[in-house]
Amino acid sequence: MERDVVIEVTRGGLVESRHRVALSVVDARGRDVLRFGDVDRPVFPRSAVKVFQALPLIESGAADRFGFGASELSLACASHSGEAGHVALAEGMLGRAGLGEGALECGCHWPFDAPVARALAASGARPNQLHNNCSGKHAGFLCTAVHMGEAPEGYVGAEHPVQRRVRAAIAEMVDVAQGDLPTGIDGCSIPTHAAPLRGFASGFAKLAGGTRVSPERAEAGRRLIEACMAEPWAMSGTGRACLALMQVAPGRVFAKTGAEGVFCGAVPELGLGLALKAQDGTTRAAEAAVAAAFARLFETADPAVAQGFRDLSHGVLRNWKGTEVGEVRAVGL
Amino acid sequence: MERDVVIEVTRGGLVESRHRVALSVVDARGRDVLRFGDVDRPVFPRSAVKVFQALPLIESGAADRFGFGASELSLACASHSGEAGHVALAEGMLGRAGLGEGALECGCHWPFDAPVARALAASGARPNQLHNNCSGKHAGFLCTAVHMGEAPEGYVGAEHPVQRRVRAAIAEMVDVAQGDLPTGIDGCSIPTHAAPLRGFASGFAKLAGGTRVSPERAEAGRRLIEACMAEPWAMSGTGRACLALMQVAPGRVFAKTGAEGVFCGAVPELGLGLALKAQDGTTRAAEAAVAAAFARLFETADPAVAQGFRDLSHGVLRNWKGTEVGEVRAVGL
Repeated sequence: MERDVVIEVTRGGLVESRHRVALSVVDARGRDVLRFGDVDRPVFPRSAVKVFQALPLIESGAADRFGFGASELSLACASHSGEAGHVALAEGMLGRAGLGEGALECGCHWPFDAPVARALAASGARPNQLHNNCSGKHAGFLCTAVHMGEAPEGYVGAEHPVQRRVRAAIAEMVDVAQGDLPTGIDGCSIPTHAAPLRGFASGFAKLAGGTRVSPERAEAGRRLIEACMAEPWAMSGTGRACLALMQVAPGRVFAKTGAEGVFCGAVPELGLGLALKAQDGTTRAAEAAVAAAFARLFETADPAVAQGFRDLSHGVLRNWKGTEVGEVRAVGL
Repeated sequence: MERDVVIEVTRGGLVESRHRVALSVVDARGRDVLRFGDVDRPVFPRSAVKVFQALPLIESGAADRFGFGASELSLACASHSGEAGHVALAEGMLGRAGLGEGALECGCHWPFDAPVARALAASGARPNQLHNNCSGKHAGFLCTAVHMGEAPEGYVGAEHPVQRRVRAAIAEMVDVAQGDLPTGIDGCSIPTHAAPLRGFASGFAKLAGGTRVSPERAEAGRRLIEACMAEPWAMSGTGRACLALMQVAPGRVFAKTGAEGVFCGAVPELGLGLALKAQDGTTRAAEAAVAAAFARLFETADPAVAQGFRDLSHGVLRNWKGTEVGEVRAVGL
């Protein structure tokens, strides 16, 4: 089996902890460009494929009917931090379809970002479903249902037309029959469909290159990825890794995190798609690995951009007083 | 090499993420009882050896001079949640030595426990050094320095008498020469000394059994471990894993977490010491593994207690709406 990408966390000259990451990069024609670890085992992509899940929002005509611009489309692909701007954007999307927060079925959670959660608590407020990191995706689901004339209730269920369209889109993107996609329930209650990492990388390569898909799908994918690259804060939040990654090469790189150590990405100018997963599900490993992978992909194409990603892949660990105590580094990429 | 303990995280029938954990359990005479993975590689024990670090507080006479009871001794061994009761205890310890929060050199951080941090933010307050999870340990260091007539300033430095005593105590507990202990800087700015997991397990077995150490050290260790078992909340906090573990068999089991996936433990009635580390540094893996290990140790001695630990080792994963979506389970123990 191919070797994994290894992420080392050091302290005082020793490797304190170690992560193993499987990585697939595929080109527009579907050929392997990078291959580390087991990329053929089905993994749940979680939120890293929100772009795939948002394809029906475009393809159905709902996004155009409700006049969604780059910010709304980016939010529809987001795991956002629940900042005030994200909440307002999600509420606005629902409002255009005549719905409100109560139509959401994603559940509530305090914003993951600790400063955002503390600021919300300090204001005396509590989170509602609009603060859920997936509220933009769910607003997109609801807008599509309304546009299609479907009852919105139960839109998170596997057999609701909303989720049937999502499943069909994912199956086509990863080249796996719908019946062969193992299914789990995601944090926000919708189905999550497992497929090999290589399939997700190949799917993003299709959208990056506009290849191996219908012209309509190529156009929908292009619009979503360009929206995310144009409004990366809407897709993530202040201080988040996805934002930092996309700011290294504005408008040229798409990167999206998923729970349990997943990342997907696309580089349109190179026609490349990327997918990776830290075996142990840790975000710090996935973040270091995706930055190192982008650095590798830009090494010859644009050394300055490659250096920007290299810097992001290498984290300095500091203690509570700010003293440097160790580092996070990618090995083998 | 011996196989690791494996912690699996499942979703929808698939193993979504996987952790590997090295584990050593040693008896009072220093013999292996359980041995999984590489237990001979030096690892940083981080906060899991706060009991070793607090030995000089007892042995110097400082704890008796300042009249510390079980709560203060437990707090001196704590990674506490920064709840109001912890802050008051730490402030009280410093006060008995004529010191205040400003003497601490551990730095500030918001409480790790999200509800505690949000409650603090909602009250309009900000954390000071007393909220640092290590403030009790640092209060113990400062009280020892005052008792010994040493200038407290710089007590976190490797060559301050406080840290020299700690290093000597750890070296003796793990049976490694002081010069052979690789050293890093911990989150709270003091040195952390690496040694094989087997050494830490052996050290806790010495204290569990009162064996292979001087009568004075055996007595100091017994007092600290009994204090932690008597006042487990002071050593941890509401809802924390250490608290839940020690509540399974009150007064019979000691368990202490450390950063980067470490746990140490002791079972006095069986004369056993335990140390483990998740290779990837994740807390969820360490928590599941330590509960499974205690279950194994009590299997014949007390099946009801074993079942309590078995229940703790098996976690149910729920999404934001409370639906069961997967589990965390220990394999091979």
